[in-house]
Parts: sequence; structure tokens; C-alpha cells
Amino acid sequence: MRKGDLTRQSILEHAAGLASRVGLGGITIGALASDLDLSKSGLFAHFDSKAALQLQVLEHAAARFTEAVIRPALAAPRGEPRLRALFERWRSWPKASGLPGGCLFVQAAVELDDQPGPVRDRLVQQQRDLLDVIATVARTGVVEGHFRKDLDPEQLAQELFGVILAWHHASRLLREPKADARAGAAFEAIVARARR
Amino acid sequence: MRKGDLTRQSILEHAAGLASRVGLGGITIGALASDLDLSKSGLFAHFDSKAALQLQVLEHAAARFTEAVIRPALAAPRGEPRLRALFERWRSWPKASGLPGGCLFVQAAVELDDQPGPVRDRLVQQQRDLLDVIATVARTGVVEGHFRKDLDPEQLAQELFGVILAWHHASRLLREPKADARAGAAFEAIVARARR
Repeated sequence: MRKGDLTRQSILEHAAGLASRVGLGGITIGALASDLDLSKSGLFAHFDSKAALQLQVLEHAAARFTEAVIRPALAAPRGEPRLRALFERWRSWPKASGLPGGCLFVQAAVELDDQPGPVRDRLVQQQRDLLDVIATVARTGVVEGHFRKDLDPEQLAQELFGVILAWHHASRLLREPKADARAGAAFEAIVARARR
Repeated sequence: MRKGDLTRQSILEHAAGLASRVGLGGITIGALASDLDLSKSGLFAHFDSKAALQLQVLEHAAARFTEAVIRPALAAPRGEPRLRALFERWRSWPKASGLPGGCLFVQAAVELDDQPGPVRDRLVQQQRDLLDVIATVARTGVVEGHFRKDLDPEQLAQELFGVILAWHHASRLLREPKADARAGAAFEAIVARARR
């Protein structure tokens, strides 16, 4: 990487961390310039608007999520083992991401649902892509004969998403010691229904 | 109500609407004064700090949630009908609340999870109280013989919470037309497992 790319990467890394704590709305050029001891004009050379910066933070975080969660999960055998790997990797994401404020996407989803525009549109695409990955993995379970033929993969995807959101809520907000075990039991129930 | 109480109620109502869109962090005394055409000093007479204002907005919204969701659900017959009423009322809450930005608590949960202090502490209590209500309603189902004796009511509560969070995500962010039907199917699966 060239020096400019390295700088850009480290700016995005810091911005993603900030966004995980205070939301995408909190990552202003001014706040970044102050945190990173860079000039505002230097930052504008990398990102020519706040929306451009937010979009790139989303792309940066999505690339990290793909590396940490999706890619290793897809390396697992098709069907139930792959769904299981996806769930396990996903639960390890807030720590694996290195972002201090938990999942940036959970934060952004709530923050942007009322804010029309290109950043919201991009997040919606990303979240739909993620739901599609879950549904596609579930479908491999049908093909492999692990799951029943009339399984609704999109139904399973929304349910698994809910298990993760409730786990994120219970562990991060409530600091509930049983959050993890309950999420695991909820996952097993979804798998058991998919098998029948 | 006295005039001062009426003013206070309408300030809280407006503040709750604002918080549902931009988060509790967005309801500053300055923003409210400007929106409501009141003086800052007049607002400070009602709320002597930003944290006090945020706490009262949480109380205001929780009282509304109790009136719109909890109280009517508890009027349903014990056991499964009551759990069903709770779920249905809960799904109608973002509209019934009259808040423009969806559920204020979903927004606040993500916003405050990294912000220690009295507002976060109060929200945690409220969310734990809500999970306790779900678990208690599930327990009436065991007593009434609708649900199996070894049901884990807290497990059910976290799962139902997840169904609602995924539904909120799918309907508000993704504008998924099937969000509602999928949440309904997820609820039925939880009830079916509780029955066995």
C-alpha cells in the first residue's frame, strides 16, 4: 500500500470505532481531525463530504465483517455445519471487529432508519446482502438433506437475525450473563425446526 | 392538570418524538426551545439538566408503553392468550406510540449501551422490567397448563425480544413487506415449542 492508502485505512479504522460508539452521525471531519491530529483540509483530501466518509466507513466495516464472519463460515462444509459456523463467527464479531462500541451495523440500522439518503440506501443493501447470505446457507442445508424440503430460508434468516439482535441487546446493554447461552439455545431451536 | 403540568407533558411528548428519530442525545434544551418556541430559561425551570430531561423522557415513554401494551395485555386471560395479546400489542406499539421514529427504546438501547450513567441505568431497569413481564406471562402459561412444566420463561423472553427486534429492523430499516408475517410465524414457533 502507498502511504496515502495507509493513512486512509487508519482514518477509516478510527472512524469505524467512533461510529460503533456514537453512531455514523458522530463521525464528523472535525472530530476526526481533532482525534487524529490531522488538518481538516488533509481529511477533505481523502473524503470530500461527510456522506462520502460515512459511506466509506460502512464499506470498510463490511469488508472487515466479510473477512471475519462470512468468508470463514463459507469455508465450513455446506448445510448445517456452515449455518453453525456462520452463527458462531457472527457472535464473535463484536470482539473480533476490534470496534470498541459493539456492532457498528446494529448502531447504524437504528440510527439511519429515519434518515433517507445514500448512506441509508447503502446500509439497506448491505443488510439485505447479509440476510441473503443466511438464506443461501440455509438453502445448502436443504440441498444436502440436513433440513426439510419445505424450509423457508428467508424466514430462518429473519429469525436468526433476531437471535443475534437480542443477544447483542442482552449482552451489551443488560450485561446479562446468560445472554450467550440463551442465544445458543435459540439457535439450536431454529436448527431443530429446520431439521424436522 | 395545572398549566405547568400541561406544558411539561407537551414538552415531554415532543422530546420523546425527537428522541425516537435522533436518539436521546439529540434532545438538547436548545433544540427543544427552538422547536417549541420557548425560552431556554423556561425549559430549565422544568428540567434542570440534560440528563434530567432524558430521564423524564424515558419515564414518559415507559408510561405510554405500559398503557398501550402491558396493561391491555394483562387484561387478557392468563397463559397463552395473554402472551399472544402481549406480542400483538407490542407489534402495534411503534404506531400506537405516535412517535415518528419507531420505538424510542430500541433507539435508546443501542445509543446508551456505551454511555455509563443514570440514563443508561434507568433504561437497563426498564428493559429488565419488560423482560420480567414477558417471563411472568410465560409462567402463567405453565400454571394454566398451556405450556410445558420445564419451560424456561427467561429463555422465552429473550427469544421473543429477538423476534420483535428483527421485526423492527426488517420493517423500519429494510421496509420488508413480509416482516410482519415472518415475525408472526416466529412467534407461533416459540408458542409451539412452549406447548410441547
